[in-house]
Amino acid sequence: MPASLAPSFTPSPLVDHVRPQALALPESGIVEVFNYGRTREGLIPLWAGEGDLPTPSFIAEAATRSLAAGETFYTWQRGIPDLRAAIASYMTRLYGVAEDPERYFVTGSGMHAVQVALALTVSAGEEVIIPSPEWPNIAAAAEAAGARPVYVPFSFDAGRGFRLDLDRLESAVTPRTRAIFINTPANPTGYVASLDELRGVLDIARRHGLWIIADEIYGRFYYAAGEGGLAPSFHSIMEPEERILFVQTFSKNWAMTGWRVGWLEAHPSLGDVIENLIQYSNSGVAAFMQRAGVAALERGESFVAHQIERAKRGRDIVAEGLASSNRVRFAQPEGAFYMFFGVEGEDDTRQLALKLVDEANIGLAPGTAFGPGGEEYIRLCFARGEAQVAEATDRLVRWLKR
Amino acid sequence: MPASLAPSFTPSPLVDHVRPQALALPESGIVEVFNYGRTREGLIPLWAGEGDLPTPSFIAEAATRSLAAGETFYTWQRGIPDLRAAIASYMTRLYGVAEDPERYFVTGSGMHAVQVALALTVSAGEEVIIPSPEWPNIAAAAEAAGARPVYVPFSFDAGRGFRLDLDRLESAVTPRTRAIFINTPANPTGYVASLDELRGVLDIARRHGLWIIADEIYGRFYYAAGEGGLAPSFHSIMEPEERILFVQTFSKNWAMTGWRVGWLEAHPSLGDVIENLIQYSNSGVAAFMQRAGVAALERGESFVAHQIERAKRGRDIVAEGLASSNRVRFAQPEGAFYMFFGVEGEDDTRQLALKLVDEANIGLAPGTAFGPGGEEYIRLCFARGEAQVAEATDRLVRWLKR
Repeated sequence: MPASLAPSFTPSPLVDHVRPQALALPESGIVEVFNYGRTREGLIPLWAGEGDLPTPSFIAEAATRSLAAGETFYTWQRGIPDLRAAIASYMTRLYGVAEDPERYFVTGSGMHAVQVALALTVSAGEEVIIPSPEWPNIAAAAEAAGARPVYVPFSFDAGRGFRLDLDRLESAVTPRTRAIFINTPANPTGYVASLDELRGVLDIARRHGLWIIADEIYGRFYYAAGEGGLAPSFHSIMEPEERILFVQTFSKNWAMTGWRVGWLEAHPSLGDVIENLIQYSNSGVAAFMQRAGVAALERGESFVAHQIERAKRGRDIVAEGLASSNRVRFAQPEGAFYMFFGVEGEDDTRQLALKLVDEANIGLAPGTAFGPGGEEYIRLCFARGEAQVAEATDRLVRWLKR
Repeated sequence: MPASLAPSFTPSPLVDHVRPQALALPESGIVEVFNYGRTREGLIPLWAGEGDLPTPSFIAEAATRSLAAGETFYTWQRGIPDLRAAIASYMTRLYGVAEDPERYFVTGSGMHAVQVALALTVSAGEEVIIPSPEWPNIAAAAEAAGARPVYVPFSFDAGRGFRLDLDRLESAVTPRTRAIFINTPANPTGYVASLDELRGVLDIARRHGLWIIADEIYGRFYYAAGEGGLAPSFHSIMEPEERILFVQTFSKNWAMTGWRVGWLEAHPSLGDVIENLIQYSNSGVAAFMQRAGVAALERGESFVAHQIERAKRGRDIVAEGLASSNRVRFAQPEGAFYMFFGVEGEDDTRQLALKLVDEANIGLAPGTAFGPGGEEYIRLCFARGEAQVAEATDRLVRWLKR
């Protein structure tokens, strides 16, 4: 080609050329407030879904030992055998699942497990049903893949809090529906599905030939049954070859939010497909991170119990404070570690979150971040030490009573 | 609903209900041979794209210190500022790019960077052009997203090795094309694009309004220019707002294959979209892993030089051995660290790789793993110590001369 015909460079804004589904993705509504307040001195941060404890040293040291031993090469795409075995043993101990390491696939975070679960089930143009308000990343991950989240609003009553309406759930099914996403105990609502409700969801899924993507990552943070109880789980009612994928994470139970390690639980007959989806998304998880996972599962029970106890105490402190304000609409969450409440006279919760940074020096997450039905609420994470939760509650209640 | 109407569970193979694009994904052709040979005593493994050195201790120790200091919480989705600054400084030093940390986005592996780049540019039903043979994960990641890889075969001549045919590249463009993937120096072929060829690719992209996804991860493993040279790069010819995304990894230069840390380089105006795509795929990379990345970039130069020197020596040893066999078709690779060669009388390279495990106790990767045009070749990674490469070459040449 003669030089004179060489195309010249005509700049236009690069974002004009980005894939529309990527461009349309929402910014995390939590991140906005976080960035607004992150440098405020003395601010008590209750916006993120994490506690204030760093990862216990016996877990971190397992990674350190592995690193020092040179476990820095490519490893098994499905996870190292030791970790898959440890997960299997843990799940059998907790849920009575038949012990089979081939059910578990190590992922680079619970979020990555969600992404793999969606890639297994929902194509561009198809639909996934999501009860809402809900942790926003599920819907956004579906949208990034070109799929469509279909929200089914929870109902709310002051006595029982957020409840799932099974009729409404079923009427959201269309010929394009491929999966139902169920998070229980739920973030941000604190909703916990009863075993009967899970049976109802399973019936709907069977009737319409749908997958269930089950997020039971807060299963151990369950308050109704008293300490140490487990929230009702699909594990108790499913058949071995049920069309259910469980997403899991090390983040919450073992204070490993920053690690980005989780797992996907699925029938072993899906192993080859899942291995490929891992290969072609992040190609596995560092072996030395996985050693930490083994330590967490095998030696982490007392730490998990300590975390649950703290969250339970945190929940009580916040609930007592909010009740005393007489301006707040909330119900005691039955599980997870969030208080999701509405404030009389404060309909714009994005503004409310920014005001609480400026005027109360506490960081909360606006309900606008959690999809349809969340707009009038604000989320507070109470998985922290008693003194800090009490101080934050004091600041909040004083602000409410101004 | 009365119990009698409750749907009963009718099991059918779960894979029948998996998304077809996921089910159609190819198994990695390398993994098959790897699994076949991984436990053979004394086998010299040259199948994977990694060397034999563990991560240097000064890098691992940076992660260890960060872990011990409790850097285990959620962190910046785009990467910690220290690492983004270190990458910017490194890229400026190497390529003369204007120093701007906002250009760099830390990802959970180079593979994750590829996934984000594809999510930015190519929707389901659209096309990405890939010169082939090529590392198979690019095409597979596109297919997993419902997009279509369009292969453009390299030509091969004995003197110059694999060459890119720009006319053929341009004639592969259709109205559905969104991006061209260019890997230089290339895995597995050892092809290195000249600056003129890069200009040609850039002209085609501009003419048709396409993105370029540039994989220059082997840019420092370039033999034509002598030691320490850099392969030609799009950085030398692009405009600031060019439609180019660079995928990068810590894996190769710093012997960190198992870590799964990389970065995406893009114009800062894409920052918000990229942050969202990270948020909704793996939600970031562990801060303590990123500290290791800072150490690698700031203190890793002599180690990188050592790795390049070893690869160069490995290349010469293998080339000399292959030439002596008189049964092998190959050209000296100009870059990367693979010998990609054909063996007279051995057309089924999958079988050849299995035979070489059984009969020569060496592990090579069959060309069938690398897409159209690769079938008649087999890949050997020479990024290892001299003694091991020499012993592996001996075994190979003895087998060839039987």
